[in-house]
Formats: sequence, C-alpha cells, structure tokens
Amino acid sequence: MLHTIKKIGVLTSGGDSPGMNAAIRSVVRTCAFHDIKCYGIYRGYEGMIDGDFIEMDARSVKGIINKGGTILKSARSKGFRTKEGRQTAYNQLRKAGIDAFVVIGGDGSFTGAMVFNQEFNFPVMGIPGTIDNDIYGTTHTLGYDTALNTVVEVIDKIRDTASSHNRLFFIEVMGRDVGHIALNVGVGAGAEEILIPEEDLGLDRLVESLRRSKASGKSSSIVVVAEGDKIGKSVFELKDYVDENMTEYEVRVSVLGHMQRGGAPSCFDRVLASRMGVKAVESLITGKSNYMVGIKNDVMDLTPFDQAVKGKSKINMELLRVSDIMSI
Amino acid sequence: MLHTIKKIGVLTSGGDSPGMNAAIRSVVRTCAFHDIKCYGIYRGYEGMIDGDFIEMDARSVKGIINKGGTILKSARSKGFRTKEGRQTAYNQLRKAGIDAFVVIGGDGSFTGAMVFNQEFNFPVMGIPGTIDNDIYGTTHTLGYDTALNTVVEVIDKIRDTASSHNRLFFIEVMGRDVGHIALNVGVGAGAEEILIPEEDLGLDRLVESLRRSKASGKSSSIVVVAEGDKIGKSVFELKDYVDENMTEYEVRVSVLGHMQRGGAPSCFDRVLASRMGVKAVESLITGKSNYMVGIKNDVMDLTPFDQAVKGKSKINMELLRVSDIMSI
Amino acid sequence: MLHTIKKIGVLTSGGDSPGMNAAIRSVVRTCAFHDIKCYGIYRGYEGMIDGDFIEMDARSVKGIINKGGTILKSARSKGFRTKEGRQTAYNQLRKAGIDAFVVIGGDGSFTGAMVFNQEFNFPVMGIPGTIDNDIYGTTHTLGYDTALNTVVEVIDKIRDTASSHNRLFFIEVMGRDVGHIALNVGVGAGAEEILIPEEDLGLDRLVESLRRSKASGKSSSIVVVAEGDKIGKSVFELKDYVDENMTEYEVRVSVLGHMQRGGAPSCFDRVLASRMGVKAVESLITGKSNYMVGIKNDVMDLTPFDQAVKGKSKINMELLRVSDIMSI
Amino acid sequence: MLHTIKKIGVLTSGGDSPGMNAAIRSVVRTCAFHDIKCYGIYRGYEGMIDGDFIEMDARSVKGIINKGGTILKSARSKGFRTKEGRQTAYNQLRKAGIDAFVVIGGDGSFTGAMVFNQEFNFPVMGIPGTIDNDIYGTTHTLGYDTALNTVVEVIDKIRDTASSHNRLFFIEVMGRDVGHIALNVGVGAGAEEILIPEEDLGLDRLVESLRRSKASGKSSSIVVVAEGDKIGKSVFELKDYVDENMTEYEVRVSVLGHMQRGGAPSCFDRVLASRMGVKAVESLITGKSNYMVGIKNDVMDLTPFDQAVKGKSKINMELLRVSDIMSI
Repeated sequence: MLHTIKKIGVLTSGGDSPGMNAAIRSVVRTCAFHDIKCYGIYRGYEGMIDGDFIEMDARSVKGIINKGGTILKSARSKGFRTKEGRQTAYNQLRKAGIDAFVVIGGDGSFTGAMVFNQEFNFPVMGIPGTIDNDIYGTTHTLGYDTALNTVVEVIDKIRDTASSHNRLFFIEVMGRDVGHIALNVGVGAGAEEILIPEEDLGLDRLVESLRRSKASGKSSSIVVVAEGDKIGKSVFELKDYVDENMTEYEVRVSVLGHMQRGGAPSCFDRVLASRMGVKAVESLITGKSNYMVGIKNDVMDLTPFDQAVKGKSKINMELLRVSDIMSI
Repeated sequence: MLHTIKKIGVLTSGGDSPGMNAAIRSVVRTCAFHDIKCYGIYRGYEGMIDGDFIEMDARSVKGIINKGGTILKSARSKGFRTKEGRQTAYNQLRKAGIDAFVVIGGDGSFTGAMVFNQEFNFPVMGIPGTIDNDIYGTTHTLGYDTALNTVVEVIDKIRDTASSHNRLFFIEVMGRDVGHIALNVGVGAGAEEILIPEEDLGLDRLVESLRRSKASGKSSSIVVVAEGDKIGKSVFELKDYVDENMTEYEVRVSVLGHMQRGGAPSCFDRVLASRMGVKAVESLITGKSNYMVGIKNDVMDLTPFDQAVKGKSKINMELLRVSDIMSI
Repeated sequence: MLHTIKKIGVLTSGGDSPGMNAAIRSVVRTCAFHDIKCYGIYRGYEGMIDGDFIEMDARSVKGIINKGGTILKSARSKGFRTKEGRQTAYNQLRKAGIDAFVVIGGDGSFTGAMVFNQEFNFPVMGIPGTIDNDIYGTTHTLGYDTALNTVVEVIDKIRDTASSHNRLFFIEVMGRDVGHIALNVGVGAGAEEILIPEEDLGLDRLVESLRRSKASGKSSSIVVVAEGDKIGKSVFELKDYVDENMTEYEVRVSVLGHMQRGGAPSCFDRVLASRMGVKAVESLITGKSNYMVGIKNDVMDLTPFDQAVKGKSKINMELLRVSDIMSI
Repeated sequence: MLHTIKKIGVLTSGGDSPGMNAAIRSVVRTCAFHDIKCYGIYRGYEGMIDGDFIEMDARSVKGIINKGGTILKSARSKGFRTKEGRQTAYNQLRKAGIDAFVVIGGDGSFTGAMVFNQEFNFPVMGIPGTIDNDIYGTTHTLGYDTALNTVVEVIDKIRDTASSHNRLFFIEVMGRDVGHIALNVGVGAGAEEILIPEEDLGLDRLVESLRRSKASGKSSSIVVVAEGDKIGKSVFELKDYVDENMTEYEVRVSVLGHMQRGGAPSCFDRVLASRMGVKAVESLITGKSNYMVGIKNDVMDLTPFDQAVKGKSKINMELLRVSDIMSI
C-alpha cells in the first residue's frame, strides 16, 4: 500500500541558477492544487539540519517566476555529508511532519538526496538546476538557456569594442567540466574559435587558426574559452602565449564570472521550471522516489538519481563543425 | 548523374523574424566553405523577378548574426503567384547562373518554392523563419524562441503596473492561427488565463475563472490572448464583456503588435539559424531539393515542402494543464 | 518652536512609474538613519483613509531598488477629494501617530497633499513620480529616463521590421499633454517625424515631409506620435489619412501602451530616487512643508506645491531643430 | 573675413564608447543639412596620417544611431605624437580638400587636436566620447549614461547570486582616475560600500563597515570598487584582506571589464550625441575652432580645449552621503 504524501518540502541546493524560483513556485502551487501542504526549506541541506522551514501556500510564491536567484537561499552543507548530519535532518523533517522533499540543484545535491533516501527510505525527487547543463538525463537544466542569452548579449557588447579597435578577445565563460555554454555561445556570438574541454585544439593550432582568420580579412576576433578547458592553465596564460607568438592582434581578456548565474529567466526556463515542478510533485504523489525530473525531446522524463549522477552529459559535436564553417 | 551546384541564391520572404540574418550568414558562409558562389536575392520573390541580386562572400555577412530583421529585405510578391512572374524569375536566375536557392520564410514562401520547383525542376530548399512556430516538420521556427523572450519581458513590465493598481490586463500576442506564443508566454509570465484558438474556453468560464482568481487572493490578473483566438471578436470586445460582467477589476488592454517580430535573436535562434543554413546548403550540394530544413529532438531534419505546408503544427497540451495548476 | 517629527508616512499615488520603489526605499532608510519611525501607507490616499498602514524599517525595503511598480500599491481616490475623506485620513494618521508624510506621485497627488496641508496644517512633502515629465520645478520626474530607454528599445525592434519591409510606422507613445517622451525618443530612435502637442505640424506638411523623406532614398520611416498630439483624432486616423494620400508606403500602427510604465528603473532614476528621498525626509525634519522635491542642474531643489501644480513643464525646442536636421 | 568651410572630416579616437556612432551620424547629417561635404576618417589619427578617408552622405550613416562601438574604428596613434606624423596628416587633409575636422574622443584625443590646431591653424572641434565622464567642461560625456545602465544591470544579476548565498562581492568597475561610474552605480545598485579614488576609506574602516552591515541584518553585500581606487593594490588583494580579517562572509570578486564599453546607447546618449554633432559642425561653420562641445545644465556649451584637458571633472559629493544613508 502506498504511503500517502501529505507534506512536501522543497529546497534549493548548490550554486543558484535562473529558474530556481520558478521551480519553487511550481512545486508550491502543484502541492496546493493537490491539497498537499508545502514547506520551504531554507539554505539547502544546511537549513534541513537546522529545521529552518516555512510553510508556503500558493500566494507565498507570487511574483517570483521572473526573479533570478532563489528565495529559499542556497548553501553547500558539510553537515549533510556526515551520517549525524543526515540523521538530524531526518529528525527535523519528521518533527515537522514532512514526508517527502523536492531538491532543486546539481549532481552534488542529487547525491545527497540519494544517500538520504537509501538511509531513511525517505521519498525524494530532484529538479536539475544549474547553468552548466552538465547533468545526464535531461537535455536542458534550469538556467542553462538563460545563461546562454546572458553570455551572448555580453559578448555582443565586447564585440563592439573588439571590432572598433581590431582586437582579439579571449572570453572565459562558465560550464564546469563541460563545454555546453562555450560551444553554444561561441556559435551564437560568432566566435572565431571555441575552446572546450571535450576537444583539445592545441596552442599551435589556435595560433594558426587566428592567423588564417586575420588573413581572410577579419579585423577582430573573439575566442570563447570554457572554464574547464585544458589548453592553457588559464585564460591569462593563453593571452601571454598569443602575445608572444602573434603580432597581428592586440589581445585582451575578459572573465565573465558570476553575472552568468543571475538575471530573469528566459521564457524557456520559466516554462521548463513550471513543468518540472508539476512532474516532481505528481511523481511523489504517485509513489515514485529517487528520480530526477528531466526533459527529453520536449517530454517530461524521469532518470534514477544514480544514473543522473554517474552519467555524462554530452555536447553536440555537430556544433563544432558548424562553428568551423561559420568562422571561415 | 548529379548536377553540380555552383551558384546558390538566398532570399527572405514573408514576415521577417529574428534569426533570418543569422540564417543568411550561415547560407553564405557554408557556400564559401564549399567554394560555391552565393548571391543574395533582395525583397524575396519580388527581387527574384526583378533580378535584384548581389554577390556575397564570407565577409559580406560580417556582424549580422545578432541583428533583427533581414538585410536582404522581405516582401510579399503578387507577381510570383502568376506563371509569368515565375517564368521571369526563372529567367533571371538562369541569366545570373544561379542553379539553386534557399528561401527563408513561412508556409506561403514554401508553397511558392514548391510550385517553382515543379515548374522548372529547379533545386530549392527552405528554412522556416517565422515567430509564429506554425510550421509542420520542425519543433522550432527561427525567431520563435526570441519572440517568447521579447513577449515575457514586456508582460513582466505590464505586470509591474497591473499589480501596483490591482488591474486586469488583456494582452494580445501574435501567433496567427496557432497558440504557441500565447501558451508559452502565458505560462512563462504567470498569466491567470490563456486564450488560444486550439481551446474554446467560453466567455462565461473566463469570467468565472477570473472571479475565482480574485477570490483566491490575487489582486491583479494577466490574461494572454492569442491573436487567432475566437472567443471574442477582438481583445477590446473581451474587455467590454468583462467590464459589463465583473466589477472586481479595473480592466486594461494591450496589443503588443510588431515589436514582437524584432530584436536581436536569442542564442538558441542564432545557433538554430547557423545549423539550418549549413543543412540547407549541404542538402542542395548532395542533390536534395524541395525540402524544408527543420529541427526535431535537437537533430537537423528534412521535411518535403508539401508536408510542411499541409501539415499542422500542434501545441503541447501538457502546457494547458501546467497553466491551470500554476494559476491556482 | 519646531514640532519634532517622530513618525513619517510614505505613499505612492496616481499612475505608477519606475523608481517609485527606489524612492520608498530612500524615504524609509533616511528615516531609519535619523531615528524616525516610518510607516508605509498602502494604495495612496485610499489607504490613508482606510488606515492601511505598515511599519517599515531599513530591512523592509531590501531588494526593491531595481523593481518597477510600487510595493505600496497605488490608486486614485475619490474619497480624498471630499472634505470628509480627508478628515478621516487625518484622523487615521493621528491615531497612528504619524506626524508628516511624503507622497510620491504626479500633480493630482500634489494637489491633494496641498489641500490636506492647508486644512490640517499637516507637514507634507512631494516627490515627482511619473514617466511623463510633465511637472514644473524639476527637470526630471522619476521614471521618465527609464521610459525613454524602454521606448527607444521597442522602436529599435519595430524598425527591424520596418526597414525589412519598407514600411511606414506610426508609433504612439505616452506623455499626457506634453511631448517630452515623444520628442526625446523620436530623436533617440531616429524617427523621420515627431508629432507633439506643442507644435502643430499639420497633416499636409506631414505627408509632404514623408514624401521628401522617401525621395531622399529612405526606404522605411518611423513617425513618433505623442498621445497628446492634436494633429489627428487618433493615430489610426493618421494612418487612414496617409493611406489615402500616399501610395509610397505600406503603413502600420503601433500603440505602445502600458509597458512604458514598467520595468527596472535606469541607473539615473535609481540615483535620483535615492537623492529625492533623502531630501524629502530631511526637509521635513528641518521644518519645511508643502514642497515638491525636484532636481535642477543636478542639484536637489524645492518648489512650493502650488507652483509645481500650476506651472508648466516646457519641452526643449532645440530638440525639434535637431530632429529636423537628423531626418534629412 | 571668415574662411568658408566646405569639407569637414570626422574621426573617433581613443577608447570607444556607446554614442560615438550616433555622434558620427549627427556630424554627417548636419554637414548634409548645410551642404557641406563630409569625410569619415578611419582609425583615428592613424587613419588621418594614412589618408584613409571615405566620403559620407546622409544615407551612409543609416541605421547606426543605436549601434555600440564606432563604424569609423578607433586607434591610438604614436605617429600623431610626432611632428612628422602631424605634418603628414595635415598634407593628407589638404590633399583631400578637408578644411576642418571633428574629433570624437577623450582628453588624449583633444590634446592631439589642440596641438594640431596650433601648428597648422587648422579648424578643429571636439566631442567628448568616453564612458568615464572624466572630462572638464561637460556634465556628461558620450557613453557615460549607457555604461551606468550596463553596469547596474550586471550588478543586479550578481546580486541574485550574492543574496542567494549570503556572499560578499567586490565588483570592479571602470572609470580611470575618477569615481563617477563607481559612485553612481554603487548608489543605483544599492551597494553597501563604494570605493573611489576621491575618498580614501581605509581598509580598517571598510572591514568595520562590512561588519556593521552584517550585524544590521544584511545577509549579502556588494562593494563597488572604482578601477582607479587606491585602497588596495587590486580588487583581488582587497578580497584577500577581507578573507583574513572577516569570517562573516564568503568573498567573491568580479572584474566587469570591457563589456562596460559596448552595447546600444541609452536614449540620453543618443540625444546627447545628436545635439553635440549639430553643435560641433555649426560651431565650425560660424568660424569657431579649438573647442570641445559639452552639455551644462542641459544646454550645449563650448569649452576651450586647453581648459577641457587641464580641468578636472569632479564627482558629486552629495552622492557619497546618500550612499551612506542608503546602506544603513
């Protein structure tokens, strides 16, 4: 017989991303729709351990669908990595009568949820929230589409300066170990080269390519570098190498940094967040647990946490070829 | 034996949409990559009839990937609907040595290309460029994603006023006969109701729903209305009906209009345009003709023009349910 | 001897405008800085009559500096136009111990404050919040600069379509009886003609000017029309007139509407709001009353309410000449 | 007797800024309006030396009013710092029949123009184009208002993350030796502290202030640091100092970099550029030379180059006090 869910907790964990608030809103309202009580858990697993909960109803999440960040705050929790910490968290949830939770975050957050589920047989469901799109089991994580737009808009601005001064810019973008952001914004912003962890171009070929680009009549160049790229130790070392080996360009560096995580979510991310929240809550209601909600071919899908955590999110190699053709 | 393509023409036709320039750029550069000459055809089929062509190389399309509109201009052509017009167009293409063309536009443009292909056995390929997403054979048309973002940003602004004054706003958005834009921006902007051609809510149920919404504690409301919706004769008549039948709200109307077609394309649309241009040109090179390039499950795909034109682009009914839950 | 101010109320009244929240924040924090209690008054004078007050401290206004609209809501109050209504409002203020208030709004709101001050000798101070910039005694009202940017961005988008299709667009913008917005966005968006209430161009000269513009090689045209302009009865009638008298253009109309009032305030408006809030509260503290805070030559300034209300905000006629030269 | 101006050159020099294209457009169209020929000079003084000129008419500057960067390109010229270089430049101008020029740039560019004028008695006029607002004789330089908006929007995004994680962010903004940008975006973005060259806060007082801020209930903090600030050797050293002396916050650094120079100009900058271009050309026509066009109290004004170059642009100290009050 199914245990009936009466109170669901919702938390955001790990780095924040645009769309997290829209997902919180969706979880809260789907609970309200099904007459389930909903509690917000502050500061991720840290707040779970502290029992830092707040009851939320449909009106509590008014006006947040378009806000970046997370109203529930986020944090990384050392405590939750210990058995004692998780036991305390469990006790807090029990005390509050919460009998399932939805965690919005990345693979670290899902690993925590999975362990917690194994230890206490507690129903959990995950929603992938990270701009890096580095999670297996979903073609899009929450915030990824927004980050792509944020970054191309910034590169558009930098190109104004680059093309006014015939400069070469190395622009470092986020993405952790994968090149999703770099590859897409590279194509989208018309970069001459894109350096991603999945492909080792090599410094010599980079210089060669930039030279060819200059020879073909281009007066300025943008090179997008994924933060996880291994070609140089850092984007500043890249600059130094090119400075030493090329005289054709004046070289500049821009590390975009944290602005990439903020801002109002795109329409796509708002809709995705709304859909994922519904799917997460209704999956818990029907007795499912230990899954991450994902989107595949525009359909909501569930992936077991262990696969989501171990699997690898692959970049679209077609885009590398498109980029090569476009930068002729 | 395959006829070898040596000169490809490219034109934009019908209403403009963000991403058309990025697609032109992609067609031109893919031609350059394969050592094929490329000609821009101005003002759609009208310019084809007039022989208004310009040779384009990789540098001709510099700095346009992020520009709205179309540098090749667009127009609707009466002449091309006549046999004489198309014959003249064919003569012009022959005279210029153009042996295939890529048309970027909507279903009307594809119908024209299909007829032209049948009459002259002339290789043609289509790229779907319209914000309405009303074309069969592709989950996304060029400009659709950008328009969604443009519209939610505008509704966010209107909501500032709506919620400051406890008002009800009817906001009419584009989309021709289909509700794609309305449905997605409705969910994305947190609208209380979404009126689309695919679903007839009825005026009574609309008023009832708005009353329930007010009773549940909402102080302001946004109703998104697709331009193709049949519920009222116009959004202004909707306002009048609600004014007469509800006293709970002060009602306002906003018709968003042409701004929805403009603006810098989103990253998604720029990447999609780049991929579609490559696919269109390389399909022509390999001897294919009379197809529209589309994207399905994130993979480039070809759909015969007659299917693209006759088929129907369907909305995602799951979103209607999500919208109902979200507006609790 | 000066009566010492211990509790200040703050309200927003009339149409909302970007920067109102930043001004509320400034009033609240300046009160906190001077150890004065601050109360938010909801829904303008309507909430004053209802005693709908909330105590606010420095943290109550966290995170609102960049939000459009007004967290205190706004409304137009019929009650406050009656002696009884104002008496009730006075009683409510007394009951709550509020001994001065700052009203953020337009000339109607200031008239109300002035009358109230005369009747009850109650200290009041005004901050001009309206996008129309139609208030005497300040070169800029709160929200005006933001609205200018909102509108030029929208016209930029419409121009993408206009220039892709060789169209003529009539774009109606806000501004009540004055042409500030129309004149500035007209110059800023590169409009071919600007129709404002302060200058009667006449329909014949408009058509003549558009013809000259076409003849000079322009393929598309934007005409910005102030909502207060008297040239035609409406922008739609303008379109009809041009349709009948010119064949050179395809004509379209866009009425921008309420989106012009919303959105995150510009940096200028945020800074202006912050300065005005400080000035308003510190003026009350030093015993001043019945003034509107304004900015003149980048210096904070006070204008008596009766002058602010009766005076006329004049447009910069130099801009008309600049516009004529630019549209050559 | 006045020498009649028949051909005017226009160039952009030094770092680019939003509004430069709008100023070029204005110079070109004002020339057309007065039947004066106009030549664009590419790459600043470098292109003047090379004779890299292009004739421009009213249509040459179509569609650039809203574009960042400069279509005429910019460069710093070593050659123009030598007598020989300037002599060559003079010969080139003479050869092309150019008898006056307008230079759009910063103080370095004006110094060059002044020296050139002294040596060759050649009519020159300057338009201040820089985001730094560090020029005497104008309350606003071209691009400054745009940069303020660009930066507050970015800080808004970073604050999403900062407040979701209870972090302290040091954000370095441009501005060369002056604190205009830092001071205004600091107030506009609601920063807790603003570090500018004009005021030495001292590291101890910074830490003290941040501690007070935390104690007052703030969970996150933004400190805006002008690039010219002297408090630490760099923003990264600031971070290290705070890391060592405070345990209350997790500290992050963001250096905004070149994006601050790009983007579509604000309405204010477009209007200002249009006015300045008219003033510059018409001043040359009436025989004036060796002045910079500026805006003071919303009126066009001329300042002799030597004063513009030697004078100091002062920040508004009132804003420092406003910032202190706002960050309570």
